[in-house]
Amino acid sequence: MIDLLIQGCDILRLDRGQTTIELNQDIAIRDGIINQITSAGSINPANAKEVLPAKGLLAVPGLANTHAHVPMVLFRGLVEDVTLASWFNDYIFPLESNLTPEDVYWGALLGIAEMIESGITAVADHYFFMDQVAEAVRDSGMRANLVWAVFGHEGEEKLNATVDFVRRWQGVAGGRIVTWLGPHAPYTTGPDFLRLSAKKARELGVGIHIHVSETLEQVQLSLREYGVTPVRMLKDTGVLDVPTILAHCLFPTDEDIQILADAPTGIAQAPKTYMKAGMGTAPLNKLRAAGIPIGLASDGAASNNTLDLYEQARLLALTQKHLAQDPTVMPVDEVLEIAFHGGWQVLRMGDRVGDLQTGKLADIALLRQDGVHVFPRYSPAANLVYSSRASDVDTVICAGKVLMRERQLLTIDKARVKQEIAQRLERLNQRVPGRRIAFYPA
Amino acid sequence: MIDLLIQGCDILRLDRGQTTIELNQDIAIRDGIINQITSAGSINPANAKEVLPAKGLLAVPGLANTHAHVPMVLFRGLVEDVTLASWFNDYIFPLESNLTPEDVYWGALLGIAEMIESGITAVADHYFFMDQVAEAVRDSGMRANLVWAVFGHEGEEKLNATVDFVRRWQGVAGGRIVTWLGPHAPYTTGPDFLRLSAKKARELGVGIHIHVSETLEQVQLSLREYGVTPVRMLKDTGVLDVPTILAHCLFPTDEDIQILADAPTGIAQAPKTYMKAGMGTAPLNKLRAAGIPIGLASDGAASNNTLDLYEQARLLALTQKHLAQDPTVMPVDEVLEIAFHGGWQVLRMGDRVGDLQTGKLADIALLRQDGVHVFPRYSPAANLVYSSRASDVDTVICAGKVLMRERQLLTIDKARVKQEIAQRLERLNQRVPGRRIAFYPA
Repeated sequence: MIDLLIQGCDILRLDRGQTTIELNQDIAIRDGIINQITSAGSINPANAKEVLPAKGLLAVPGLANTHAHVPMVLFRGLVEDVTLASWFNDYIFPLESNLTPEDVYWGALLGIAEMIESGITAVADHYFFMDQVAEAVRDSGMRANLVWAVFGHEGEEKLNATVDFVRRWQGVAGGRIVTWLGPHAPYTTGPDFLRLSAKKARELGVGIHIHVSETLEQVQLSLREYGVTPVRMLKDTGVLDVPTILAHCLFPTDEDIQILADAPTGIAQAPKTYMKAGMGTAPLNKLRAAGIPIGLASDGAASNNTLDLYEQARLLALTQKHLAQDPTVMPVDEVLEIAFHGGWQVLRMGDRVGDLQTGKLADIALLRQDGVHVFPRYSPAANLVYSSRASDVDTVICAGKVLMRERQLLTIDKARVKQEIAQRLERLNQRVPGRRIAFYPA
Repeated sequence: MIDLLIQGCDILRLDRGQTTIELNQDIAIRDGIINQITSAGSINPANAKEVLPAKGLLAVPGLANTHAHVPMVLFRGLVEDVTLASWFNDYIFPLESNLTPEDVYWGALLGIAEMIESGITAVADHYFFMDQVAEAVRDSGMRANLVWAVFGHEGEEKLNATVDFVRRWQGVAGGRIVTWLGPHAPYTTGPDFLRLSAKKARELGVGIHIHVSETLEQVQLSLREYGVTPVRMLKDTGVLDVPTILAHCLFPTDEDIQILADAPTGIAQAPKTYMKAGMGTAPLNKLRAAGIPIGLASDGAASNNTLDLYEQARLLALTQKHLAQDPTVMPVDEVLEIAFHGGWQVLRMGDRVGDLQTGKLADIALLRQDGVHVFPRYSPAANLVYSSRASDVDTVICAGKVLMRERQLLTIDKARVKQEIAQRLERLNQRVPGRRIAFYPA
């Protein structure tokens, strides 16, 4: 008996950097794993507990969002067109001082709803009140790598509380939840706090998810104050001895790239944020040539307004071509490799998910291909990168369970979520002068 | 008696660079014109021939696509990741030598379907077999400014044929169709042919739609061969004495900007194309400071894969912030001014459409606002620029006629269009070695 039979879909396959489409296939799922893939009609639907007819839909791996602050959807569109320092110090850090655990729960559910609707089945989330984010992840049926963000000024006691969070939630929800540590960034922690964080991560046997080298100014500040780049500080403090997710890393030096190539690390890329904040563009060709995994990321919706990795994939291709002034760089197949497999590599799950093959975890999105905006279909791969929209995602499966069918969410009551948040907006929108959770040095 | 009553929508208003949202309004339309806008419930629905309940939908002006090659949707995704010279000489110019008038008709309808679904009610199209494009525009109910593209090597006889096209279709379909002349670009015509084109445009009393200064190489080539920039050549040959649409114009000199400021011209911007081809970014702040109208454009879907101006609006904002390395440039209200009003100014219709006011042409799109990706709604304006998708467009009205309702196209049979094109793909995909319609100098 199989749990779920997907009937007659087309399948995107990634094979050593080449994408191909297999037409008209059946996918059998058992115990959350892809059990069999075969030409349509070979599997008897009577042997399946649930059958999804999927003729004409394109099956792709669920996407992994490698760096987010999911509950920040609560601040979507609230502040635009200001400098990065003003964004942090005048808006976001003061606004975040208002947040309650319950706000975070509903914000997380809102963001998870948007992510499922966009074909995302896992998120590496970096925020506060992470018990509530973990509850939202558990309730929604998606996967997550969760860290409780901590600043250096909060001290060892707060760091220990994030260690307790790691222990509380590690492996919960059938293993869908993974917990790591989340020191915020070298510029908000300094080396001593990083060293302590790395020690605790080693003791726990977990990784670290951290912001690094987001702007050129941050790199210059680090060189001035500590005499090393932020990446070098991560190495010197032992952070790079454990698995890491590095958010952004737009300005690595050549030495930094060599350091990262030798570490169990991966880099999260949110090009929409980088363009919107005028930050610059990461040298992805160099990073990839050094063998460093790259994944897509949404960052928080307060800065880039959506949790849509199809949009980020397109912008990743466009920004790299723009940077190189060369339309031949970052070709379609490479973009799809980063989008569908790279993200899982960054989450250290690249051997278990990110390609639709027998034995892999059953994280699958089915996309409609009948829109006029994706016709003709000379190249479904090119259509995925340059024409498809998150709204083309029809069905989403995570760990073998259907989370969305024909764009109807099955695990989240969207009306309830919006209603809960609507009641909170007036309070969330207040800023108390001088009250903020941290300070961004400009 | 009014023809159409839109009941209870919210309305985006543009007022001297500031956008505001008026909640819960009725819009009455008569004879293709906005007859009255008033708070919901003030107009008796018994006085309307047709009533559209629109509670919760956001009414925005129909978008004007200021530069396209609509039938090129036939080549969507067929060639990716090659240099601009290879794209033209090895693919597009050979492929275009296959096109028949019937291919162009069905291609135009496919592209128009995509545009209506994306909230576009007018397009400035620059292509071949324009009688068929005009037929598709007439049949679909949208507006267009149409030019028959002509290269210098095709000579005066061909130019005269495009003059005949102008006469045949000027003002047809109740004035929805406007026809101008379309010499391809300074680098494919040279000054003599431009002078002749300008003379004929003056005689006809029409404008000219032309590509100009798309790449830095084109500007350098012009300086080398003719001793003037492409823009200066347009002035010297009299092209800028008539109304013009200039496609792209990424590399104007300061003198060029002064020339353009004194001319009845506007510039079409397709930032997705520019990023994808690694071409660069236009200095929009300088062009706008000089008072030159800027509009959004899709260009052809063979190069940028969609005819989606919401995507182009977002990329226009992102590329300008990226270029300036400053998140404060090109703020939300300015993007919306360009998107919703600038495009109509480029089409020389800015006084008649592009803002929802009594007396303006009734070109209106109604957008859904209930998606989780546009919640909360602190700023519907920011949501429009950074979160909305073309797929949020619910209803489209052009010249007072409903072309799409609840995402169902009312004037185009999409299944028929796709079937007609599917039959042609094998032939359209062939390239005969050495056979091409023109040559791009690299």
